[in-house]
Order: sequence, then C-alpha cells, then structure tokens
Amino acid sequence: MKYIAAIDVGGTTVKLGLFDGEGTLLEKWEIPTRTEDGGKNILPDTADSIREHLAERGAALSDLAGAGVGVPGAVTHDGTVNRCVNLGWGVFPLTGRLSALLDGVPVYAGNDANGAALGEQWKGGGEGCRSIVMVTLGTGVGGGVVIDGNILIGAHGAAGEIGHIQMRDDEPETCGCGKHGCLEQYASARGIARVAKLYLKEHPEKESALRSADDISARVLFDEAKKGDVTALEIVEIVCGYLGKGLAAVAAVVDPEAFVIGGGVSKAGPIVTDTIRKYYVQSAFHASRGTKFVLAKLGNDAGIYGAARMALGR
Amino acid sequence: MKYIAAIDVGGTTVKLGLFDGEGTLLEKWEIPTRTEDGGKNILPDTADSIREHLAERGAALSDLAGAGVGVPGAVTHDGTVNRCVNLGWGVFPLTGRLSALLDGVPVYAGNDANGAALGEQWKGGGEGCRSIVMVTLGTGVGGGVVIDGNILIGAHGAAGEIGHIQMRDDEPETCGCGKHGCLEQYASARGIARVAKLYLKEHPEKESALRSADDISARVLFDEAKKGDVTALEIVEIVCGYLGKGLAAVAAVVDPEAFVIGGGVSKAGPIVTDTIRKYYVQSAFHASRGTKFVLAKLGNDAGIYGAARMALGR
Repeated sequence: MKYIAAIDVGGTTVKLGLFDGEGTLLEKWEIPTRTEDGGKNILPDTADSIREHLAERGAALSDLAGAGVGVPGAVTHDGTVNRCVNLGWGVFPLTGRLSALLDGVPVYAGNDANGAALGEQWKGGGEGCRSIVMVTLGTGVGGGVVIDGNILIGAHGAAGEIGHIQMRDDEPETCGCGKHGCLEQYASARGIARVAKLYLKEHPEKESALRSADDISARVLFDEAKKGDVTALEIVEIVCGYLGKGLAAVAAVVDPEAFVIGGGVSKAGPIVTDTIRKYYVQSAFHASRGTKFVLAKLGNDAGIYGAARMALGR
Repeated sequence: MKYIAAIDVGGTTVKLGLFDGEGTLLEKWEIPTRTEDGGKNILPDTADSIREHLAERGAALSDLAGAGVGVPGAVTHDGTVNRCVNLGWGVFPLTGRLSALLDGVPVYAGNDANGAALGEQWKGGGEGCRSIVMVTLGTGVGGGVVIDGNILIGAHGAAGEIGHIQMRDDEPETCGCGKHGCLEQYASARGIARVAKLYLKEHPEKESALRSADDISARVLFDEAKKGDVTALEIVEIVCGYLGKGLAAVAAVVDPEAFVIGGGVSKAGPIVTDTIRKYYVQSAFHASRGTKFVLAKLGNDAGIYGAARMALGR
C-alpha cells in the first residue's frame, strides 16, 4: 500500500498526517516547530518524523506516493517559498528541498490558507462542490478560492484576499494592511469586537448583557445573541451585513457553488451562516442568489487534508 | 491545411472567421441573423456560409479541425445553450446541433462576453498574460475572467458579472438587474451619462462645455475632458473612481495579471485606463497594486478570436 504524507507547517507546531491512496486519513500527529536558526530544522524534523511514523507501520519512505505541504506564506507555481516570517524562512525551493529529505518523493506545496480551502472543498463543508470560496473568520478574514478542485493563486499570490475588499470610505481606523475600511476591520474576531464596543458606546441607551462582560469578544457577542440579547443581535446583524455584502461582490467575480465559513468565529454555528446569507441575498446578482452557505467541518485538520489533496490531485 | 471556423452569434449579425491551425485569422465576414421562427435558421445559415467560404478556398468541411461559437446567453459545460432571448433560442444542445450541421466537426461553445475576454487574453490587450479580467464598458458593464487561458464560468454561469458589484447603499434608482447601487449604474455608457447629468444639475455654479451639448453621452464627456474642460474632468474622476474601487474588489478575489478595458467607452483611450488605475491603486490590496491596465485591441473581432481559441485550446 502507498501512503501520502500531509504536512501543515504552523508557527508553533507542524501538523502531520498519513493518508492512504484513497484519501482516508490513517493517522495524525504534531511536532514542535523549531523556528530558531532561520527555521532550518523544520523540514529535517518533519522528514524524520514521517520516517518514524512510517517505520511504526512497518513501512518506509519508498512506500510514499507523494507528499503535500502547506506553509504560512506565498508559494510560487514552481514550488519556491517566498518568505514565511513566522518560520524565519526566506526564499528557497521548498518542494525540491523537502523532496530530497524524503528520498525523492514528489512534493507539492501551497499556501496554508489555500490548502485549508482545498481540504474543506475535498472532504469538509464543501464536499461535493466543484467550486467554493472558503472564508476564514479568525484573527483576520482570510479567503481561499477553489475552482474545479484547483486552488486559485493569483498573479501576485493574492487571490482570495477577500478580507481586504474595501467596504467603507469613511473608516478612520487603519487596517493591518494599511488601508481603511477593509472587510477585515468589521468581520474578523477582532473587528467584530471593535464593532460591538463602538455600537455600545454610540448607543448608551441600549441595555445589554454585553455591558457587564469582562471583555467583549466575538465569542461573547454571539453567545449573548444566541441567548436573545437584543443589542447583541443588532450587532450580529451589522457584522454579518458587511460579510453578506462583501461575499455578494465575491460571487459577482467567481460565482462559487458554496461559501464555506470557518475560523474561530464560525464556531458560533448556524447563526453566522444564516445571518450572512440573509444579507448576501439582498446584494447578490440574481443568478447567484442560491449559492450555499455552509460551516467548515475539518477545523484544525483542514490544512493536512488540503496538503494530502495537493499530492493526490496530480 | 486544417482550418478552424469561428462564430460569434449576435442579435443582428453572425460574425464569422476562418483561422489556420496556428491561430492566424485568414478571413472574416458577416451574415444577417435571422431571428424569426425561434431563430431556427441561424445555425443552418451559419454552416452553409462556412461551407461556401471553404469552397472558395478549394476546401471542404472535412478540412475543418474544429469550430468555436460564442452566443449571447449562458452555455453549460456540456454545450447546452440555456436561452438566448435576442436570438429567440430556448434550451437545446448547441454544440451537438452545430456539429451535425458541420459533418461532425468538434464544436466548442461559450457565452459571447466570455469569448471576447478569451480572445483579448489570447491575441488582444491581454496577450502574454496568463490571467486577465476583461471589463467591457458598453451599454452595461460586462466582465470576463480568464485564468490560465480558461474562461471562468461560475456555478450559475454568473462569474464575471462585475457590473453588479454593489458600490453604494443609498442609490435611489434601480439597476436593470433590480438591485440598487450596482457598478453598472455609474460606469456603463448610460451610467456615465447619468452621473454626468446629475453632477451638472447638483453643481449649477460650475461652467462646462457639456452644458451646451445636444446630449451628454459618455463619449461627449470624455471628449470634453480631453480638451481640458475642468467639470468634465471632475466627472471622469468620479466615474473612474467607482471603476477603480470596484476592480480593486475584483483583484482581491482573483488577482489577475491585467485588467483589459474594452467596450465603446474605452475608445476614449488612455484617459480611461490611467484614471481607473489611479483609484484602483488606492483601494487595492498591496500585493495586487501593480496589476496592469490595458485597452482592449480586437474591437468587434474579439468574439471570433475567442471562438477560435475555444476550438484551438482543447
């Protein structure tokens, strides 16, 4: 039997998985990411760990059909990584170097956010859809566009940067990207908390359980909204209104079969997808109004699923 | 020598072309589109005309390597046309029927706007670019997304409907699509004229040669702007501002190598691309700020180039 090694390199841990040739996850584990010395140990550590786990199964590197790797940075078409600040990496041939460490096994590489999108399209919330846009509502608002099972990278590696669609012209605060009024400023975990605090401040007359919270986070907001707090529900409408309108613009460009909503904020559940869809329908071009909204399913495993898919899909 | 037949079916004329196997246009001509009787004569007329033009070269249908056809409506992956109101067509297997009329030659079909985008990417303003977004500023604002030489169709045939990205929440007038505030309402030929008239009305103190024009059209506006009319220039900035901001949203989704600007409005020349780019750069995500803006080159021939490319690209 031939195995696929799947690798998702994060700033703290490297997530690893072994898949069979049919795409079933057989085993998953993690190792620490050693970012010291320009991250030069990360790939050797990874290769050693894969070798050990194969040995536990009575197998060897020669039993690998291929490997896929997702990294937190841009990867060009030819497998060159172009700086991963969190890993200490500069520019080098990622696929070639990892392949050499894995006795010449073919290696496929991609950006980790795009990899997670591919994983969700393959075996997650988007399973059965040919094209999806993955929307990750976490520290930022990330996106990944998958069309006919292929990740859309873009001419400058910036396809799917939907968190930086400009939603307002009058935003005084600056986005992490340097612009003003980006979707991310209203719909990331941090953005949602910011919108909530601003709303409470601008409406001192409105009572809300949020006012007695130690810290107003996106999680607290959705928790109170689900308990029926009217003010919290109003804020959820505002936040999901930005998302619905932004995703309608996305649909006017790529018209996906489904939007898959993931990231920490999505843990609030159907209230997120249902409220986004409500505003999406108002802004979307008529032909795209039926686009599905589903929650991501794979959580932290999306990256290794996507990495496996990169290797299996060729 | 093998030929490729290229067909661009419009509501008034069918544009036809013969290409050689290297993609050189050898000859082009037009025939009237007979829309009566549900448009049932259109395909037989087209096949007859191709046969005649081949005969003039001492060739026959057996000398065709393939044919491509663009139509003003949605075409599914399997070559079924899904209503072309302007032609009187309903739903039928377009590629199969045309192929039968051409003695079994392989036929490839697509939407005409997408076909024009493919033509411009192949041999027009986007030549040499792997991915482009074609922006057609005509009666409406049309779009076509070409990625790695393939047209992006979308799950509901609505990819590239960039004219219906919502730009404003406060627009009282209704777009042809039924929504309010679509890019098309500000940047199509009609939308530009509307914006110009509104601006003159709201600023009665501003002098302008536009005030003595018989009818203020997009063409008149750009003509006066190029002559240095200050008010006309201000309106050009407004209109191109909408386009720049809208295309920045498009780039945050697909990150093309170039935007190719076509349609009647683009005949005003570099003032269009230069002014759009100025506002695009302000709204675009930093990685995509260098995206090229070029004018379309093929004019009315874009459709037959795209149709030829559909047949040659397989």
